[in-house]
Amino acid sequence: MFALHKRLAADCIVVGDFPLCRLLLMNDANYPWFIMVPRREEVREIYELSEDDQSQLLWESCYLSQRMVEVFKADKLNVAALGNVVAQLHIHHIARYTTDAAWPAPVWGQLPARPYAESDVLRIKDQLRRVMTESFSFAD
Amino acid sequence: MFALHKRLAADCIVVGDFPLCRLLLMNDANYPWFIMVPRREEVREIYELSEDDQSQLLWESCYLSQRMVEVFKADKLNVAALGNVVAQLHIHHIARYTTDAAWPAPVWGQLPARPYAESDVLRIKDQLRRVMTESFSFAD
Repeated sequence: MFALHKRLAADCIVVGDFPLCRLLLMNDANYPWFIMVPRREEVREIYELSEDDQSQLLWESCYLSQRMVEVFKADKLNVAALGNVVAQLHIHHIARYTTDAAWPAPVWGQLPARPYAESDVLRIKDQLRRVMTESFSFAD
Repeated sequence: MFALHKRLAADCIVVGDFPLCRLLLMNDANYPWFIMVPRREEVREIYELSEDDQSQLLWESCYLSQRMVEVFKADKLNVAALGNVVAQLHIHHIARYTTDAAWPAPVWGQLPARPYAESDVLRIKDQLRRVMTESFSFAD
């Protein structure tokens, strides 16, 4: 049984599910920052997924990446599987801007998280709803 | 024509070529840190690669990841496509240890690079030569 790590559950807002991954929005308004978590048990590294799951992850990651650039007009994406603090496999997708407060440094450890207002979360979900028309179920 | 970005060329040692990616060793003895660069022109994001290249990148990344865990007995891998400083698509693969000097923080911006002695580079190449027996040509 897949269960989302409690740290991810605490730091993020669930957006919905791809066929493989749960999509989370990091509750940090400093950057549009999403996290994809394959709904598989006890997987820590990408290579531990089955080959089919690896391919599906790649598809979902690229699909999300393109939608993020489209919606958030990012200058650059940062895509990363780190997992030093939370070992459950999760892949960060962060829209970066040459004008954001951490640029050009990676975002981790740079700025305190700035929680979203509820209206901002609704707006982001609405923006995604317009473009995530394929292979994705929204949580609400 | 593919040309390695001069910043990557300056900071790294060329190990060899997968069918798609050039494999570099970051010249920083703080961690076993490799960088894969798809030999394609003007690609900044993974989704900009053709679907065939995306699949090949995934295979090469997972192959390298498994060999790194085997050879370097890593506690965790960090796999990341950032590109804020060097936009040419390149994917970091870093072997992390719960005892390394930056743990559990990501490595970027943590410690000054500690250049390898030539004998260390030869040893690492030799370790890789024993396990990278598939789909990889060493540069020397």
